[in-house]
Amino acid sequence: MTQKKYHHGDLRAAALETGTELLKSRDADDLGLRELAREVGVSATALYRHFPDKDALLTALAYQAAEALGEFQKQAGLRAGGGNAGFAAMGIAYVDFAVENPALFRLMFRKAANIDVLSGDIESVGSAIRGLRETVAGLTPATLGDDKRKASALRAWSLVHGLACLILDGQIEYDRELIRSVVVSRSVLSS
Amino acid sequence: MTQKKYHHGDLRAAALETGTELLKSRDADDLGLRELAREVGVSATALYRHFPDKDALLTALAYQAAEALGEFQKQAGLRAGGGNAGFAAMGIAYVDFAVENPALFRLMFRKAANIDVLSGDIESVGSAIRGLRETVAGLTPATLGDDKRKASALRAWSLVHGLACLILDGQIEYDRELIRSVVVSRSVLSS
Repeated sequence: MTQKKYHHGDLRAAALETGTELLKSRDADDLGLRELAREVGVSATALYRHFPDKDALLTALAYQAAEALGEFQKQAGLRAGGGNAGFAAMGIAYVDFAVENPALFRLMFRKAANIDVLSGDIESVGSAIRGLRETVAGLTPATLGDDKRKASALRAWSLVHGLACLILDGQIEYDRELIRSVVVSRSVLSS
Repeated sequence: MTQKKYHHGDLRAAALETGTELLKSRDADDLGLRELAREVGVSATALYRHFPDKDALLTALAYQAAEALGEFQKQAGLRAGGGNAGFAAMGIAYVDFAVENPALFRLMFRKAANIDVLSGDIESVGSAIRGLRETVAGLTPATLGDDKRKASALRAWSLVHGLACLILDGQIEYDRELIRSVVVSRSVLSS
């Protein structure tokens, strides 16, 4: 087997990219470090230097997925022109990301726990969650008070998360128009 | 081993009751037909007559859980006096049921697929879902049109389902007051 040479950071990035690719066609439980090393073209030993065990790999994949989701939502919000339309577009993007990347989406919410959307240090949270919080903050008046803003953020998150889970679990079919009319509600942010 | 005698229907009911009990302390994947037979006090052969394989057992447990959830929600709605307060109480009950029965809740949405909350023959759906639909129908004016009522029902379901999943996955902590303020929203049913 020809083994490739990577600079330190590059191997980590290549492994995460290939791992993300592999998760398009299988569940996280079926992804192994040895197989990933083979796919990336390095020895298992080289890969272990970056990810001491499978758990470390899956956690890194989960956090990278959260960043990708955040970017995907942000772009959708910008394309829709921000404001309430942008907020709705971000919600629809959340559901779309889940439907297009089911294994990554499930992994994200199994592994990237304690990213704490609702409180704590905003710098420590993933950009997906940070983007959601900032948008909710921008759309809810500060005079509403922290408790109500927190409830509004969680209401919006729960709504799109529930939609995504119901679709992934086969409870409802993916129907773009229905999703739009569920998400586009003037009232999600009101109390 | 002393084996118990059951009338035909009674063994099935006893097995489902014991299976439900066992799922309070473990995941559905860790539940076996042989062990269940032992717990119920019958031979594996006797149990196989009711559930030819594990999948049949899990599906039956899932449907029974959906009935239990429906009854739990219905009672909560009645205690709150029906109407909007009752609807909110049903939403909170949905989350509470998930938190108190995580393995059953997950199983329900893995196995009882196609219970089809939103359309189709109302008689064929589980009572949990039927109760939700009837309540939503009662709270949304018929003049709203079928599409908007469907979106309202799905909005309400997604909201509490998302909340439940985020709590079960450790993304947010169980906080009764927060859940109440997320669910108690005049606006969940509006479009």
